[in-house]
Amino acid sequence: MDAAHAPVDQRPVSIDGLLALARPDMAGVDGLIRDRMQSSVPVIPALAEHLIGGSAKRLRPLLTLAAARLAGGQEDGCLKLAAAVEFIHTATLLHDDVVDSSELRRGKVAAHLIWGAPASVLVGDFLFARAFELMVEAGSLQALEILARASRVIAEGEVLQLTRAHDLDLAQETYLEIIGAKTAELFAAAAEAGAVSAGASAARCLALRTYGQNLGLAFQLVDDALDYSGASDTLGKNPGDDFREGKVTLPLLLTIARTGPAEKAFWERTLERHDQTEADFERARALVVETGSGAATLALARDYAEGAKRALGEFAGERVWRPALEDLVDFAVARQA
Amino acid sequence: MDAAHAPVDQRPVSIDGLLALARPDMAGVDGLIRDRMQSSVPVIPALAEHLIGGSAKRLRPLLTLAAARLAGGQEDGCLKLAAAVEFIHTATLLHDDVVDSSELRRGKVAAHLIWGAPASVLVGDFLFARAFELMVEAGSLQALEILARASRVIAEGEVLQLTRAHDLDLAQETYLEIIGAKTAELFAAAAEAGAVSAGASAARCLALRTYGQNLGLAFQLVDDALDYSGASDTLGKNPGDDFREGKVTLPLLLTIARTGPAEKAFWERTLERHDQTEADFERARALVVETGSGAATLALARDYAEGAKRALGEFAGERVWRPALEDLVDFAVARQA
Repeated sequence: MDAAHAPVDQRPVSIDGLLALARPDMAGVDGLIRDRMQSSVPVIPALAEHLIGGSAKRLRPLLTLAAARLAGGQEDGCLKLAAAVEFIHTATLLHDDVVDSSELRRGKVAAHLIWGAPASVLVGDFLFARAFELMVEAGSLQALEILARASRVIAEGEVLQLTRAHDLDLAQETYLEIIGAKTAELFAAAAEAGAVSAGASAARCLALRTYGQNLGLAFQLVDDALDYSGASDTLGKNPGDDFREGKVTLPLLLTIARTGPAEKAFWERTLERHDQTEADFERARALVVETGSGAATLALARDYAEGAKRALGEFAGERVWRPALEDLVDFAVARQA
Repeated sequence: MDAAHAPVDQRPVSIDGLLALARPDMAGVDGLIRDRMQSSVPVIPALAEHLIGGSAKRLRPLLTLAAARLAGGQEDGCLKLAAAVEFIHTATLLHDDVVDSSELRRGKVAAHLIWGAPASVLVGDFLFARAFELMVEAGSLQALEILARASRVIAEGEVLQLTRAHDLDLAQETYLEIIGAKTAELFAAAAEAGAVSAGASAARCLALRTYGQNLGLAFQLVDDALDYSGASDTLGKNPGDDFREGKVTLPLLLTIARTGPAEKAFWERTLERHDQTEADFERARALVVETGSGAATLALARDYAEGAKRALGEFAGERVWRPALEDLVDFAVARQA
């Protein structure tokens, strides 16, 4: 079906409109990011540039800016918060890649494989601290509270994942708690902090928090599904990474339940005892597709996507940023294409 | 010489007076620390308790409290800042032990050897975020700025040490820059933040910052000297750790310069090529003593200690906390005993 024949309620999936609206603000954020990743210690900007420069989507700072502007914010305090959000995100990526021994990130060799795990840990700490320096400059204690809390919840989610993610009996609720903390919390806090910086009402701050939270859940569910169906150029990382790390995400949880006793030995060997060959990933991938578990994961992602759009009802009369933020939701769940 | 015959200007080296003065405040800080290290994710309080419970000296939060009280602060906002300072310190210890692959910390097996390096990295992130949540509660943007900046400077110092510390030609200035950033900055910020929370004048905030900075430099110099002369029960870590990691600290820098070409091959093998036996440490230790390099390091520590005491001149009329903070300086440089 070509674009001309698409049903009228299905706009083409693109965030070009949002990116055009946010371009001047994002240029400011980019300037702040480049300025504040500098240090007299040369390894720091080199490592940060590797991860931050170029191909990063910068979805999270975009959320902060869009939320601030949608809520009527005219000031530039949101730029510093947006840069802080990107620094928090980058710091967690650096630490995650060390924790997971990942090989690829944003389509490049992971930083710890070039500069070593110690430098990745410490430059992550540097970026995290820089984030708080930027938040202090932005001057809102309420935004600081939101993002400090988010940083703590992210760490809790990562530890929960580390200690529970190899458990074949992981409850779906625990999986949702993990992705709620490690991914959706920063989306929620990024949007809420933007609204707060604009002086929005409590109801509107909560609406944008809810938007971010639902968008984040949808985004992570799609990510987890793509790990069984994507290509490395869409993902910016290797498909199968979750399986190879023995990380039990929703597509796998559903597949394990649906394949029952017949495959129990296969899952125990590959995920619990971590005894795998490359052919095992192909078999797991086939089972995820055959049992409809990938499709079910994407269906749940679409439910959260609808929740994100509903939250924007608080801004029903707005015709510029609200439709652009709806596009972002469609874009997040259409990434499998 | 017994205490009765000590010269009048040499009080016995003890911080019992300071600890007694600070006891009610420190009990409050301890309560905050135990409360805020809790999490619904069980590994987090278990790992934090291992490091925080029991034998920690808690010098840094003590500095925050003493600075606040010396500067006339009556409020309890400084308790939250003090707990935040201890969380920042604990987070950096967790990350440092991963970076250095240390085996002992505070007289116990290092956390990463029990729970793994990934858990240590992530619990460090949790504690760092908790520190900022506590600072937000304390409500002073100025204190937040001081401690966010300190967190960033510490990370820069750690990276500088990581990339330069195996360099036999390390300049003494670079060594002082490293310990100024990785150790003295938090002492300085802890004291300054306490003064700020008390609403002290700019001159008094600066005086307490200067006190903390000089105390921190003295403290680290003594630590580096003790690595060639201490016993593991005084240190809470193994003597010789710096040498075994190939970390070139001041006692070694001076020894390398003083032994000249005669020992060049020995230093290159043991420190640059990292080809060592246990007997090599004993030889290095003997050279540090014979060349007077250990004594010279301690002499420099005493210079900074005097600087710390001079900074307290700003509070010349105060007869309770100022003498107690002078005792702390003497205690820091007398640890070799």
